[in-house]
Amino acid sequence: MADVGCPGFRFAGARGGIKHKAGLDVALIACDRPATAAAVFTSNRVKAAPVRLSQRTLRAAGGAGIRGVVVNSGNANACTGPRGAADARRMQAEAAAAIGCAPGEVLVASTGVIGTPLPMDRVDAGIALAGAALARGGFGRFAEAILTTDRGPKTARRTVRLGGRKVTLLGCTKGAGMIAPNMATTLTFVTTDAAIGPAALAAATRAAVGPTFNAIAVDGDTSTNDMLTVLAGGAGRKLAGKDLAGFTAALQDLLGDLARQLITDGEGVHHVVEVYVRGAASARAGQAVARRIATSPLVKTAIAGGDPNWGRILCAVGNAGVAIRPERIAVWLDEQPLCSAGARAADHDEAAAAAVMQRPSYTMTVELGQGRAEARYLACDLSHEYVTINADYRT
Amino acid sequence: MADVGCPGFRFAGARGGIKHKAGLDVALIACDRPATAAAVFTSNRVKAAPVRLSQRTLRAAGGAGIRGVVVNSGNANACTGPRGAADARRMQAEAAAAIGCAPGEVLVASTGVIGTPLPMDRVDAGIALAGAALARGGFGRFAEAILTTDRGPKTARRTVRLGGRKVTLLGCTKGAGMIAPNMATTLTFVTTDAAIGPAALAAATRAAVGPTFNAIAVDGDTSTNDMLTVLAGGAGRKLAGKDLAGFTAALQDLLGDLARQLITDGEGVHHVVEVYVRGAASARAGQAVARRIATSPLVKTAIAGGDPNWGRILCAVGNAGVAIRPERIAVWLDEQPLCSAGARAADHDEAAAAAVMQRPSYTMTVELGQGRAEARYLACDLSHEYVTINADYRT
Repeated sequence: MADVGCPGFRFAGARGGIKHKAGLDVALIACDRPATAAAVFTSNRVKAAPVRLSQRTLRAAGGAGIRGVVVNSGNANACTGPRGAADARRMQAEAAAAIGCAPGEVLVASTGVIGTPLPMDRVDAGIALAGAALARGGFGRFAEAILTTDRGPKTARRTVRLGGRKVTLLGCTKGAGMIAPNMATTLTFVTTDAAIGPAALAAATRAAVGPTFNAIAVDGDTSTNDMLTVLAGGAGRKLAGKDLAGFTAALQDLLGDLARQLITDGEGVHHVVEVYVRGAASARAGQAVARRIATSPLVKTAIAGGDPNWGRILCAVGNAGVAIRPERIAVWLDEQPLCSAGARAADHDEAAAAAVMQRPSYTMTVELGQGRAEARYLACDLSHEYVTINADYRT
Repeated sequence: MADVGCPGFRFAGARGGIKHKAGLDVALIACDRPATAAAVFTSNRVKAAPVRLSQRTLRAAGGAGIRGVVVNSGNANACTGPRGAADARRMQAEAAAAIGCAPGEVLVASTGVIGTPLPMDRVDAGIALAGAALARGGFGRFAEAILTTDRGPKTARRTVRLGGRKVTLLGCTKGAGMIAPNMATTLTFVTTDAAIGPAALAAATRAAVGPTFNAIAVDGDTSTNDMLTVLAGGAGRKLAGKDLAGFTAALQDLLGDLARQLITDGEGVHHVVEVYVRGAASARAGQAVARRIATSPLVKTAIAGGDPNWGRILCAVGNAGVAIRPERIAVWLDEQPLCSAGARAADHDEAAAAAVMQRPSYTMTVELGQGRAEARYLACDLSHEYVTINADYRT
């Protein structure tokens, strides 16, 4: 992936020395021409300074005219007060100088330790190095420089024919399954050479994020720094109609790939479980049930222990805040029935169900018997490593 | 506590053989005269058969005329379909026969494994033995017979002078910190010789449960079987005015004691943390923030690791779904300041804060700076034992 690029963009990763451990920690994207941009930011009410700055920048720019993105890892610049806000603006200005554009044309993201001011001399040095290294083939180093406790870079690429020409989508994400201490942040960046207007790109991004990055759960916490950005730098006639639908589908496919990599690479994760809720009265109800199952500590420890303990699944369903009919619920693990009509399935085979749970990935299907809506969520196990990583991190 | 009773009540605990391991598993309360009763049931939409039966019984009785309670441990009679409903009714009838009253005058509770039908021959045998053993001094065995994975019985007693006479409140609870697999249930029973009307007892119970049993969190899950019952068996003039207020205060004190025992005795719990949120815009907002902190896996693993990682606390505050002002937030651990004005406190002393977290219990104070409302929640650590207990339970 390292030398694979996206037409119209240059990338770089450099080391400024922000991270205590070795590795790249400053990343830069430069757009050849002003790009359309859409982004989804953390819903946490405590937002890091770069999140607030990028929100303001994108709003002021009307989702267009973006020339670049600057990212640092190793320090989240969150809960850092007025100084943090000033530091984020300084990062933006330094990156604009390196790219050769105005500060208001640059988005900013940070990830790492919360509550410690950015070491700005190191950030400045990193931005200068990254600016000098910007290259078509720099995506591999970009994807590496945004990492914190991740096992490795997570990237994906799609090409699709839209409106008679080939369009590329190139993306990367970071986040150790959203479980790492102080570094729980998910950052995702996608570039594409498609030509799309701001409203269409915003709608496509919202549509593609719902069933992908908004449907994964490790521990249910949302970080102060989460941010997902799509930059569309193509020229010419804007995508519309079925071409726009095709782009949205390709974007969803790409984000689904990245989201699954995020869960799979999560530290302490041994099993990835697709929670599939069907027969829901509404999509919203189905999502609430799927999310509750995917975030229940009792379900997640059962996944870790390989225990086909379907009572915990029903307990989570009942806690979802949704009007359900317990006597209609059925549950399967892959092909193995656990529960039928709200009670133990007649053909329940405990040993066979336990064997399914040894698989690295499997599906937990919950039929609610109320309607035709369905929802999917990716979940994982709550393991000893999770506790070790999060309890022993700074000690 | 074993030979301490409550005037007007007889108690018993017996072994019917429902539990695989040794120990008492059927418990009985008999009221000398028809008692006023109030109860709080699980909010889980998947309610066990005994919960649904007790709800119907209490409603039909208008909160009065209750003559007894029957409880079994070792099997929750939850997710057991129509057979489970019939079994709960049979338990009720057997207990009524043992006590010498009508079935509609008996409340039923169960706790233990979900999804397996009750072994009714053993339940019947246990009820018969318990009926024969009913005694003034049987409370100790009652408190023992309702346990599942608990370390030991959790009981509390209060006496208070109301309306010129001494009133006794005697209670017990079970639940291994609501964390044990398939047995996550909290059951609580209180008897008192106070004379109170149904509406007053219901109001007193609601008021006393809010800041006690509704303000503790181990993992945020609510079981299919949770139930808290207060039986008032006194004769004569009903409590009113300041006597009723005095009773409510005594009940809250008793329940607070039991709730703290529940958290402290939780398996895998090494630290009990009182989350104290103040300066909230409303009591509801304060409670939402306190609950979110107390149930955040990242905060709970930080408690386990003794890491004064205040960024995780602010992250949880921001995830509470409440409009907050991050720049006004301050955080302390006991007397140690961590965060002020949403950033690291100037007088933050990392080593001293880490030392506070070695204490078996301490207070985490969060000032929101928005108003005058406050809320308290009892939290605990998420430890390796939690994962071991819940992942390895049936394997």
